[in-house]
Amino acid sequence: MKQIKVGLIGLGTVGSGVAQILTQQRRLIKNRLGAELVLARVAEKYLDAPHRYEVDRALLTPDANNLFNDPEIDIIVELIGGIEPARTFMRRALEAGKHVVTANKALLARDGNELFALANEKGLELGFEASVCGAIPIIKAVREGLAANEIDYTVGIMNGTANYILSKMTDEGASYAHALKEAQEKGFAEADPTYDVEGIDTAHKLAILAALCYGNRVNFDDIYTEGISRLEPLDIDFAREFGYKIKLLAISRGGAKSIEARVHPAMIPVGHPLANVAGAFNAVEIVARSAGPIMLYGLGAGMLPAGSAVVADVIDIARNMLTGAGVRVPILAHQPKALRDRPLRKIDEVSCQHYLRFSVPDQPGVLSKIAGVLAKHNISIASCVQKGRRVKGSVAVVMLTHEAREADVAKAVAGIERLKLIAAPTVRVRIESLAKA
Amino acid sequence: MKQIKVGLIGLGTVGSGVAQILTQQRRLIKNRLGAELVLARVAEKYLDAPHRYEVDRALLTPDANNLFNDPEIDIIVELIGGIEPARTFMRRALEAGKHVVTANKALLARDGNELFALANEKGLELGFEASVCGAIPIIKAVREGLAANEIDYTVGIMNGTANYILSKMTDEGASYAHALKEAQEKGFAEADPTYDVEGIDTAHKLAILAALCYGNRVNFDDIYTEGISRLEPLDIDFAREFGYKIKLLAISRGGAKSIEARVHPAMIPVGHPLANVAGAFNAVEIVARSAGPIMLYGLGAGMLPAGSAVVADVIDIARNMLTGAGVRVPILAHQPKALRDRPLRKIDEVSCQHYLRFSVPDQPGVLSKIAGVLAKHNISIASCVQKGRRVKGSVAVVMLTHEAREADVAKAVAGIERLKLIAAPTVRVRIESLAKA
Repeated sequence: MKQIKVGLIGLGTVGSGVAQILTQQRRLIKNRLGAELVLARVAEKYLDAPHRYEVDRALLTPDANNLFNDPEIDIIVELIGGIEPARTFMRRALEAGKHVVTANKALLARDGNELFALANEKGLELGFEASVCGAIPIIKAVREGLAANEIDYTVGIMNGTANYILSKMTDEGASYAHALKEAQEKGFAEADPTYDVEGIDTAHKLAILAALCYGNRVNFDDIYTEGISRLEPLDIDFAREFGYKIKLLAISRGGAKSIEARVHPAMIPVGHPLANVAGAFNAVEIVARSAGPIMLYGLGAGMLPAGSAVVADVIDIARNMLTGAGVRVPILAHQPKALRDRPLRKIDEVSCQHYLRFSVPDQPGVLSKIAGVLAKHNISIASCVQKGRRVKGSVAVVMLTHEAREADVAKAVAGIERLKLIAAPTVRVRIESLAKA
Repeated sequence: MKQIKVGLIGLGTVGSGVAQILTQQRRLIKNRLGAELVLARVAEKYLDAPHRYEVDRALLTPDANNLFNDPEIDIIVELIGGIEPARTFMRRALEAGKHVVTANKALLARDGNELFALANEKGLELGFEASVCGAIPIIKAVREGLAANEIDYTVGIMNGTANYILSKMTDEGASYAHALKEAQEKGFAEADPTYDVEGIDTAHKLAILAALCYGNRVNFDDIYTEGISRLEPLDIDFAREFGYKIKLLAISRGGAKSIEARVHPAMIPVGHPLANVAGAFNAVEIVARSAGPIMLYGLGAGMLPAGSAVVADVIDIARNMLTGAGVRVPILAHQPKALRDRPLRKIDEVSCQHYLRFSVPDQPGVLSKIAGVLAKHNISIASCVQKGRRVKGSVAVVMLTHEAREADVAKAVAGIERLKLIAAPTVRVRIESLAKA
C-alpha cells in the first residue's frame, strides 16, 4: 500500500495532538484515504522535555533541516508558532518542494501573501485549516462548501480564552480581573494574555478568513482591533436588561470598493445562536448570497481539536498527491489572478448601533443636555435608561442609539465629555445587528 | 478558458435555483474554479409551466436522453426527486460516463448502495451534498473536514417543516393541527405532509449521514422512525417546566458490533444550541473523537440554499476534472473495501431517559401503584410531578425516568395500562442526553 510521509516540526500542544492522531488513527485514516499516512520524522528543540504525546524517540531530531533534506518526506507540518523561525522553516520546506500545513495564524496574517505566492510559484499546497477556529472546518466550508456563493458578511467568536472570560463575567458577575485570573489558573489563558484578551489573536484569524471570503488580500494592521479588558460587570448587567449579551466578535462585510473587518466586543441579542456560545467554544456565522446564513460551532483550540484540523489538511494534500491532482483549490479560495486589493474601511466610516453609558450627577436637565449633543451629531436615541445605581458618586445614564456612524458617535461623546457634568469617562459598546447583510 | 458543461434534469424549485446560480454567479465561479461552468442543457417535463427561474428556452428539452447522449456534457444534475424515473436517469447518466449530482435523499436512502457501486465501477463521482440539510456543507465536513476522526455520535434537526411546526407549537402554544395548517398556508409544508411530519424525510437523510459517519452500509428500513403528529401542547408545556424543548431529532451512534440510528421527537435541554434552532432551520451536531463536538447550522431547504449545495458539488467535480484527479474522496467517506455491514440496533435495545405522562383519576394510591410497576421493570424515577390540570376528567402524572432500556419502558407502560386506573393512553417522549458519546 502506498505511503505518504509526514514531517512534523514542533511537539508542543498541537504537535503532540497531530502525532497522537497520526499514530492512533492510522488504520482509520488508511480506510478513508486508501493509503498510509506515516509520521516519518519529528523536529523538536526540547528533545528531553515532557511532551503530551511521546513519539518513538528514533523519529526525533533537534534540527528541522533534517526534514527539509529528507527526500522521503512529502508534507511538512509546522507547529512551532510565532514568526521566526517558523517563517524560515516554511519557506525552506516549500523551496525543498514539500507541501506545508500550519496552524500559525500570526505568521499567515502577517506574511501570508508572501508564503502563498511562494507555494503557488512552486505548485505546492499550503494548508491552514487549524489556524482559524481550531477543530471547526471553516476554511474548507468557505473555500469549497460555499464555493457557489458571494459572501456578504461574517461574524464570529474566534478566541476561546476571551469567550471563557466573558462567559464567567456574564454568568457569574465576575470582574474582568477575577475572570482572567481564574482562566489562567485553569490553563485557558496564558501568563501574558494580551494576544487573546486584546483581540489580536482574533484579528489574525479574521485577516485570514476575510481574505478567503472576499478574494481580497487583507493587510492585518488595518483591522480595527479592540479587546475586552476594559469591560465592566455593570455594562454586562445593562446589556442583559436590554436583552443582549456581550461577546468579543470578529466581523467582516464585503463591498464593491472596500471591505469591512473589525474586532471588538459587541452586544448581540440573547436569542441569537452566537449569544449561547459559551466557554472555550468558537462559532462563526457566514451569510452567503445563495446559501443564506450558515453557522459552524466547535472547539477553537486544544491538542486534539486543533490536531484534527491539521490532519484533515494533511489528508487533503495526500488525496491530491495520490490522484495526481496537484493544487486543486486555490489557497485563498479564488484564483491568484482574480484576487483583489480593496482597502479595509476605516472604523470611522462604519455604522452600527451603540450602547453609551454616561456617568453623571443625579440632577435635572442632564439628560436633555446629553440628548442635545447627540442630536447635533445626527445620532438618534432608540432607548434610554437612568438608574439609581451610584458609580463613584454619580448615576449611570444609558442610551442605545439607532444606527450611527462611528465618527459621529466619537465626536458626540467628546462633545458630551466637554460638558462639565460628566463624572467619569463614557463607556461605549457597539451593538451588532448580525442579520444585516 | 476551459469550459465544463452541465446538464440539468428538472426545473422545479431546486433546479431553478441551480440554473439561477450557474447563470448569475458565472463570473464568481470562474474566479474560484479557474474555468467556466456552463449550463448546457435542461431537461424539463413541463416546458410551458412557469418556473421560478426561466432559462434560455434554447437550452430546454422535454427528453432527458438528450443530455445523456450529448458528448459535450460532463456532469448531470438530477433534481426531479422521487424514485422513478430519477433512478433510471441516474443510472443512464453514469452508464454514459457522466458524473452525477443529486439532492434526492429518498432515492439514495433506498437505492444508494447500488448507485454508488455503479459510480465506483465507472470511476465517476456521485455528489449528494444537497440531499442532507440543504445549504449546510455537512457531507463535506464529514467526508473531508473530519477525516481524521472516528465519529462517535450525531444528533440533528434535519427537517425544516417539522421544526417549523414544533417551533409554532412551542412558542405560541398552537395545536399540532393548527401549526400544520399554518405551515401549509405559508408554503412550508406540502398538502400531504406525511414525509416531513412522520420523520420519513429525516430518516432518509439520517441513512445517508450514518453511512458516511460510520463507514457502514445502512438499511433505511431498519431505522426506527416516529413523527411529531401525536405530540400535544400539554407535553410541550410539561417539557418547558422541566427545562426541555421538544425537537424532532435524527440520532446516530457508532459501535463495534452495531450502530444506532433513530428518528423521533425528543426532549433536549433548553440551553443546548439545538434547542434554539427555530423555524425552517436545520442543524447537526457531530461528536468526533479528536475534534470534539462540531455543530453546523443553516437553511435545510429552499431554491437557492439547496442550489448552493448542488453547485458546490458540481464545482468539486469540475476541480477534479480540471486537475485530472478522478474520484478523489470515496463516496461514503471510506474506501469501498473498508465499508462494513454492522446491523442497526433495534429500538428495544436503546437506552435513554423517558418522559411518561399518565392520565389517572385524582385519588390516593395511584402514584405508588405506577411507581411499583416501573420499579418491577428496573426503571427508576428521576422526578415526578402531579398537576391539577384535568384532561378528559383525569389528572396528569408526569414522571421522568433515569436511563432505561426501551424494552423495559414499553413493558412497564403496558403493565401500568393494564391497571384499571389509567384513563387515557400513556404519552411517552424520549429525553436525549446529547453530550453522551
